[in-house]
Amino acid sequence: MTEDIGKKLTTPKGKFALEKHIKEAFENSDDGKSGISDACAAVVAQEGSASKKLFSSKLFLENIHFDLTYFPLKHLGYKMAAIAVSDILAMNGTPTGLGMSLGVSNRFSLEALEELMGGVRIFCKLHKVKLLQFEVNTSLLGLAASVSAFGEVMPDKMLARKGAKENDLICVSGDLASAYTGLILLEREKKAFEADPNTQPDLDNYHYVLERYLKPEPRTDIIQALAENNVMPSSMTVVANGLAAAALHICNASHVGCDLYEGKLPIDLLTFQTLKELDIVATTIALNGGEDYELLFTIAQKDYDSIQKIKDVSIVGYVKDYASGCNLVTNDDKLIPLTAQEFAE
Amino acid sequence: MTEDIGKKLTTPKGKFALEKHIKEAFENSDDGKSGISDACAAVVAQEGSASKKLFSSKLFLENIHFDLTYFPLKHLGYKMAAIAVSDILAMNGTPTGLGMSLGVSNRFSLEALEELMGGVRIFCKLHKVKLLQFEVNTSLLGLAASVSAFGEVMPDKMLARKGAKENDLICVSGDLASAYTGLILLEREKKAFEADPNTQPDLDNYHYVLERYLKPEPRTDIIQALAENNVMPSSMTVVANGLAAAALHICNASHVGCDLYEGKLPIDLLTFQTLKELDIVATTIALNGGEDYELLFTIAQKDYDSIQKIKDVSIVGYVKDYASGCNLVTNDDKLIPLTAQEFAE
Repeated sequence: MTEDIGKKLTTPKGKFALEKHIKEAFENSDDGKSGISDACAAVVAQEGSASKKLFSSKLFLENIHFDLTYFPLKHLGYKMAAIAVSDILAMNGTPTGLGMSLGVSNRFSLEALEELMGGVRIFCKLHKVKLLQFEVNTSLLGLAASVSAFGEVMPDKMLARKGAKENDLICVSGDLASAYTGLILLEREKKAFEADPNTQPDLDNYHYVLERYLKPEPRTDIIQALAENNVMPSSMTVVANGLAAAALHICNASHVGCDLYEGKLPIDLLTFQTLKELDIVATTIALNGGEDYELLFTIAQKDYDSIQKIKDVSIVGYVKDYASGCNLVTNDDKLIPLTAQEFAE
Repeated sequence: MTEDIGKKLTTPKGKFALEKHIKEAFENSDDGKSGISDACAAVVAQEGSASKKLFSSKLFLENIHFDLTYFPLKHLGYKMAAIAVSDILAMNGTPTGLGMSLGVSNRFSLEALEELMGGVRIFCKLHKVKLLQFEVNTSLLGLAASVSAFGEVMPDKMLARKGAKENDLICVSGDLASAYTGLILLEREKKAFEADPNTQPDLDNYHYVLERYLKPEPRTDIIQALAENNVMPSSMTVVANGLAAAALHICNASHVGCDLYEGKLPIDLLTFQTLKELDIVATTIALNGGEDYELLFTIAQKDYDSIQKIKDVSIVGYVKDYASGCNLVTNDDKLIPLTAQEFAE
């Protein structure tokens, strides 16, 4: 919480006074009767709309999901919102609202909380979503945040992990491994600083990978571009824990196999070089690193021309039959089964 | 986690395998396309329904909200679900689903997780709600749970904290202070045990107050009874942090004052006697204890006869004008302003 240095800090007092203070900084979601001050978020369905309501919730725990020694609070607020909203996008939904329950210890000043929620506020403004629920609890154990995202989607437009078909093309947005590379660098600098507090951080040339880790953007642009180009994917998910886990999620749910091509993985040049300096194979980080929050989706072969028109999407492989399994085709043409620690039985 | 003693325990492996295992024990919420295995819960609106979707989320942290040395895991799962659902009821809503994100440390065995989620499963079955979202994370810091509840309500039936009018009657369901008394006893026994591990717990006569703390029920029965008797309250909230905080919530949102009568507070006889033995004034616990999860609501005077027909509801005071403030009228007819720690500025 380096933001706090030198400022006069305020100790938050009562729970409700604190909640009221934070809520007032947000656009009021009050529709005349219920508002953010009530027990529930009340989401009004569009008149005559048969849309499905989407809901996603993520739990973020200090020193598991983030490290406040190098994660600025404002970025953290923004990132947690972006991650929750990414799940709505992965169902082809339109995000409409956010909910947030925090657990904070008494080392958190009011200013620190405002910093964190300031990031959420910027996110809400940029992405046109409303904060519909906010609550603060005491925590003995560092910062804990439960972040919910709401959205809606017409049933015929809804995407899920289920739906990929044999011979579909596998596509991914953006590039992979850069965010995790940012995390590796931040962890390295932290260790260097702990060993010698006089050390100066050496991060000047790593702006891109740091930004990818500290400030991921939900890929609303990809969802829009797919709609504009009349491409309806057959399945979709978020790349949150590495490409391998995301591909296995889609293949398991769709009862299919896949081939991913190592040579087709979108890895940014700086990321590749940085990982090389660190003696780490970029493919490994792309497959199993995580923190990308890009979209992985499958499309029918007939949509090949349309997908070429969409910026920042790479075709990385093919859907195969279930019996073929899920594999990486390496640059020297070997088949390696995809694995992800999270799927360990 | 006394349940674990003597059993052979399984260490949970990968995140997704663990999530799959737990989800399989629940009724599948799959409607053919998306299901509990997807990134989001997809809640289908009733055909042609203009209902509002309600959403509530609560964060529960070990040693803040519960103590596992005396809180059985199955009860904890049930209670967390009951608390989240109570918020839906307070808006006069019908609960439809639950979501759950857990943070667990490696001292949690698979069996312990199953015990916890077993309580949630019993709740879902009894209260006809579905588990729509489930996720497990690692925690360094004890058990953390984010529990969400979903529901719906027709806009003209929705209740909120706002809406209480001068001269309305203030009503509360059930009795107050008993759950917190249970908590006091459990804390006392814990201290006695820590001082002398050979001590035997002395809780035989306290079944009621312990059950009130360990197994609160959402007051679905009250919501139904109000509808059956055509009583539409003017405002409603949950008594979660004591009667005073709940009354202040309604009065602040409705811009009114209130008089609550000490002599009318519903306090069970055993609770009263137990608190007397402990040299604690029952009124204080009713006002500022918490953990009741009863409903506090206001009704028009014309509904006086109808409310008498409803079992387990007490009239505890009147709504006054804003300038009168929020007060307790004591048994010796003194006016004491209501306060709640949570409202400290």
